[in-house]
Amino acid sequence: MTKKLTEAEALEGLTITAGPFPASRKVYTSGSVHPDLRVPHREITLSDTLEFGGGMTRKAVNVPLRVYDTGGPYTDAAFSPDLHAGLPVVRDWLARALTVEQLQRSSSSFSRSVQNQAAFGFMHLRPPLRARSGQNVSQMHAACKGIITPEMEYVAIRENLRQDAAFEERQQHRGMGFPGLPAAQIPNAVTPEFVRAEVARGRAVIPANINHPELEPMIIGRNFLTKVNANIGNSAVTSSVAEEVEKMVWATRWGADTVMDLSTGKYIHQTREWILRNSAVPIGTVPIYQALEKVNGVAEELTWELYRDTLIEQAEQGVDYFTIHAGVRLAHLPLTVRRRTGIVSRGGSILAKWCLAHHQENFLYTRFEEICEIMAAYDVTFSLGDGLRPGSLEDANDAAQFAELDTLGELTQLAWKHDVQTMIEGPGHVPLHLLQENMQRQLEVCHEAPFYTLGPLTTDIAPAYDHITSAIGAAVIGWMGTAMLCYVTPKEHLGLPDRDDVRDGVIAYKLAAHAADLAKGIPGAQARDNAISKARFEFRWEDQFNLALDPERARAYHDATLPAEAAKTAHFCSMCGPQFCSMKISHELRSETVMAGLEAKAQEFRNSGSALYHPSPAPTEVNP
Amino acid sequence: MTKKLTEAEALEGLTITAGPFPASRKVYTSGSVHPDLRVPHREITLSDTLEFGGGMTRKAVNVPLRVYDTGGPYTDAAFSPDLHAGLPVVRDWLARALTVEQLQRSSSSFSRSVQNQAAFGFMHLRPPLRARSGQNVSQMHAACKGIITPEMEYVAIRENLRQDAAFEERQQHRGMGFPGLPAAQIPNAVTPEFVRAEVARGRAVIPANINHPELEPMIIGRNFLTKVNANIGNSAVTSSVAEEVEKMVWATRWGADTVMDLSTGKYIHQTREWILRNSAVPIGTVPIYQALEKVNGVAEELTWELYRDTLIEQAEQGVDYFTIHAGVRLAHLPLTVRRRTGIVSRGGSILAKWCLAHHQENFLYTRFEEICEIMAAYDVTFSLGDGLRPGSLEDANDAAQFAELDTLGELTQLAWKHDVQTMIEGPGHVPLHLLQENMQRQLEVCHEAPFYTLGPLTTDIAPAYDHITSAIGAAVIGWMGTAMLCYVTPKEHLGLPDRDDVRDGVIAYKLAAHAADLAKGIPGAQARDNAISKARFEFRWEDQFNLALDPERARAYHDATLPAEAAKTAHFCSMCGPQFCSMKISHELRSETVMAGLEAKAQEFRNSGSALYHPSPAPTEVNP
Repeated sequence: MTKKLTEAEALEGLTITAGPFPASRKVYTSGSVHPDLRVPHREITLSDTLEFGGGMTRKAVNVPLRVYDTGGPYTDAAFSPDLHAGLPVVRDWLARALTVEQLQRSSSSFSRSVQNQAAFGFMHLRPPLRARSGQNVSQMHAACKGIITPEMEYVAIRENLRQDAAFEERQQHRGMGFPGLPAAQIPNAVTPEFVRAEVARGRAVIPANINHPELEPMIIGRNFLTKVNANIGNSAVTSSVAEEVEKMVWATRWGADTVMDLSTGKYIHQTREWILRNSAVPIGTVPIYQALEKVNGVAEELTWELYRDTLIEQAEQGVDYFTIHAGVRLAHLPLTVRRRTGIVSRGGSILAKWCLAHHQENFLYTRFEEICEIMAAYDVTFSLGDGLRPGSLEDANDAAQFAELDTLGELTQLAWKHDVQTMIEGPGHVPLHLLQENMQRQLEVCHEAPFYTLGPLTTDIAPAYDHITSAIGAAVIGWMGTAMLCYVTPKEHLGLPDRDDVRDGVIAYKLAAHAADLAKGIPGAQARDNAISKARFEFRWEDQFNLALDPERARAYHDATLPAEAAKTAHFCSMCGPQFCSMKISHELRSETVMAGLEAKAQEFRNSGSALYHPSPAPTEVNP
Repeated sequence: MTKKLTEAEALEGLTITAGPFPASRKVYTSGSVHPDLRVPHREITLSDTLEFGGGMTRKAVNVPLRVYDTGGPYTDAAFSPDLHAGLPVVRDWLARALTVEQLQRSSSSFSRSVQNQAAFGFMHLRPPLRARSGQNVSQMHAACKGIITPEMEYVAIRENLRQDAAFEERQQHRGMGFPGLPAAQIPNAVTPEFVRAEVARGRAVIPANINHPELEPMIIGRNFLTKVNANIGNSAVTSSVAEEVEKMVWATRWGADTVMDLSTGKYIHQTREWILRNSAVPIGTVPIYQALEKVNGVAEELTWELYRDTLIEQAEQGVDYFTIHAGVRLAHLPLTVRRRTGIVSRGGSILAKWCLAHHQENFLYTRFEEICEIMAAYDVTFSLGDGLRPGSLEDANDAAQFAELDTLGELTQLAWKHDVQTMIEGPGHVPLHLLQENMQRQLEVCHEAPFYTLGPLTTDIAPAYDHITSAIGAAVIGWMGTAMLCYVTPKEHLGLPDRDDVRDGVIAYKLAAHAADLAKGIPGAQARDNAISKARFEFRWEDQFNLALDPERARAYHDATLPAEAAKTAHFCSMCGPQFCSMKISHELRSETVMAGLEAKAQEFRNSGSALYHPSPAPTEVNP
């Protein structure tokens, strides 16, 4: 089945976009518990504020702004990408762990056959790691034993946006839970111990396969920053290995916190290896896709043995989380028959087909505890798939969807029994007012295991704009407590996203996640808003571009009408022109002379009481 | 000041996009109270559903879908646009009204000077109408007297989306108010009497100047469909008359319910005339902009007399609603001094400057009842401007904003005393969790006068994507009860929007408004979602495109990867490819054979009770 794929072929046409963002540099923080950690942030340098007045120019320094950074080494000026070698190892402690053994070769017969055929694009394979017999290497297991792992301290440092004196209390609105839902429990500062407790409680996950040492650890949980996932992956119709590697780097550049490789076409194994070895973010997959490829697309021929080998194959490559549709139970399928759009999850429909062909219960369900053991041996995180999610507004919150959710809640407790990290996937197409019931039920039946939703899309009628229709649902459900938002691109329902679609999708979701974080009141979240608004008010255009989620496009849009360099310091833009710039007028109003008069006038008003409307004495006639 | 502008110059480079949408035709409904009315809807024709099974092909007819249509005559195949002649008169009853007199010439000295100079692009001017002395021609005045005007019946017919048997109850989720806020009072069917009562109550407005007979009446209120406004208009830096007329037609084609002409550059009067005579939607303006042009941008030189002449000038041209920043009181200005971004409303800052220069109360406030008399004489609707809206998240919900809102509430009651229709403008930059307080206070202090918000933008950090960051806030505040959403384009904060930006902004807001309507539960709102989802599930690609808010772009995105005609009936797309199409599999699952087995299996499960997890008997070892 597997054709020979040379390195040259794999990378054909590849152009990686790397290098720092404008006026930005990477800064690294070391740990206290684990002093060797180098936790990255991006620091954006700002220009000085210039104040003119009384014939003098005064300068005021604006301190650099530190922001969360998903770009990995690619956005570090000191780093030279070499895709053939893969990224440098971050988690060098893994190979030294006593709970882990290094295997001579892959435990997956499929992996061995691919590698034996020398049909492998990526040339620098490491021998896989696996938990020693009887050991559990999951972050959750360590957390339950009271251990603060390097990954936990790493994410604690990474999550803290509240930096020194620059983030006083008064500069941020207090957060608020969505009315009627239990509020998040967000700490003033994220400590390693807080992270440990949340992971132990199952309320957060750190997807971090021991075979993905290139990973910069990150955390997903409702009491942390809201995360964004970007889906990439080829289909039988289009796209190549090179394009997918490029999309992964590209998606993380714009802010994807995790990436799912949903490839279903050729070279699934090889594409994944290239992606993993070059990815600093967690990679998720849906193993049933590859299993189906192995039986030439005939769902009925899927077997547990084949699927199990696929799990091990991918776990030993380093996949950080698996979508597993174990909640698609045979008993739930009759509930989908009268739906507007049936089963819209690819994995869900494959398993439904298998169940019906064999008249047997879903083997992912019956074998669930065996799967748990595999997950624990590599620390792969469950992403329990919502195979019965609604694919149209009409199907939202129906019996099939909630029957599956109940099953996922039950499976969560089984996974936790094995100390396996678990998150729960959610819909789909849901109108705004039905989001609350989704979140409420998920919190209840899944015991606050992190919720990870696709969108949700709040209308069905906007193909080509579904990144927007779903960013609306994403922001609101993020506020409600969803921990990670799976992006939707403008091509949703229409075709496979290209590079531009990935960028549009990621940015739409970054701003939705940020809107949620502001509502939840994550300390320091508003700092970037304050900084960009200050820059805007002071006509520091360059700073405004540099602080934007997409500095390139912000600059390009500005320059479309005012390209001259002088316009970058001009006290207006083409929207209103010089005469009508309200901000310019606001500045004039703040001049000292005006201020003095204003204060006097204010005093006069205070003295005269709070009387409101005073008509002028002699109105002129309207109809003269 | 006014240069000669020939018709040829005015229209230079003009290309109007007209003609029906694909598979669409205009249908017209007549009235019962006013039988001569011809109320337009757009009807989208759908192809048949083909079902294959048992060696036979069965056809099922899909009834055409009727949707609300803002496109005016331009989207009617039978109409040939002639911009020089203007649109045909819709409201032919106006000139016959006994309460109205036809003037010989404009009552505005500025209008007369422009027209006397033969410096006018639009050549077919009608003599202006005005209420006879002592008369009030507002819709609100009629409503309070119990009269159902033609405009009221027109909008009643227009608003009804619930059409016959196609919209059974079960096909739509019941709506729900935003938690903690008073729910809307949406009727099962919109009747002329319901419209009258809402207008009389002040809870809805029908902006319809008696000098805008080309208008197709529409209604703005929280118990009706959520509306979208698009801003156009040139600035001193860029854009021409032709571009603005084109943008107006373009914006309404994509769904703008009203258009504001915010021109501040040259030829303001002429640009507006061209726009009005060719517009089937209400046109709003901010008269202070033109007044400022008349004093060469020196705010201090503004006078009541000049402003009053400008109001009359524009009222006699036919402007349907005026933004009037009468709430920017001198006493509120000290509250803005410590803000992050001062005063960001152009009108607000101009008036603040005037107040401070003269140390006098805002003349729009002191002369408010005189303004009411002008409004009543032409039925211009108030849009009470939020001159002190927050321009950054930090400034959201501050003392300045709410002090102004209190004043607007007081002015609402004054306007209502004069039976003048009134809506209230709202922010701005507001994080998600502070939207509720905005809506709550507005409902309370403004007595449910329609709220009309700009966005709100839920983050500050996404310039170039502010149509998205604000569509999030717009959808949520729409659900809460905001009646009209003022769009924001991708160019917000960066430059003047072009044609593409207008389209992006309008579509983003149409889907946000629709998301709000679904949440509120407007009867029939979900019909389009159901139709497009049915088309999607049945692989009727053409119907899916045609039912989309933007058929062109949906088709283009699909065709980017699968351009062949055959792909328009293919049972897959490039997103998943043929093997992995979940919808295709869902169809296979519904085949009769499978269904029979499924029912038997379901019965078996019902008999066996609801036991959940059954592990398989002999788990294999993970670590072999």
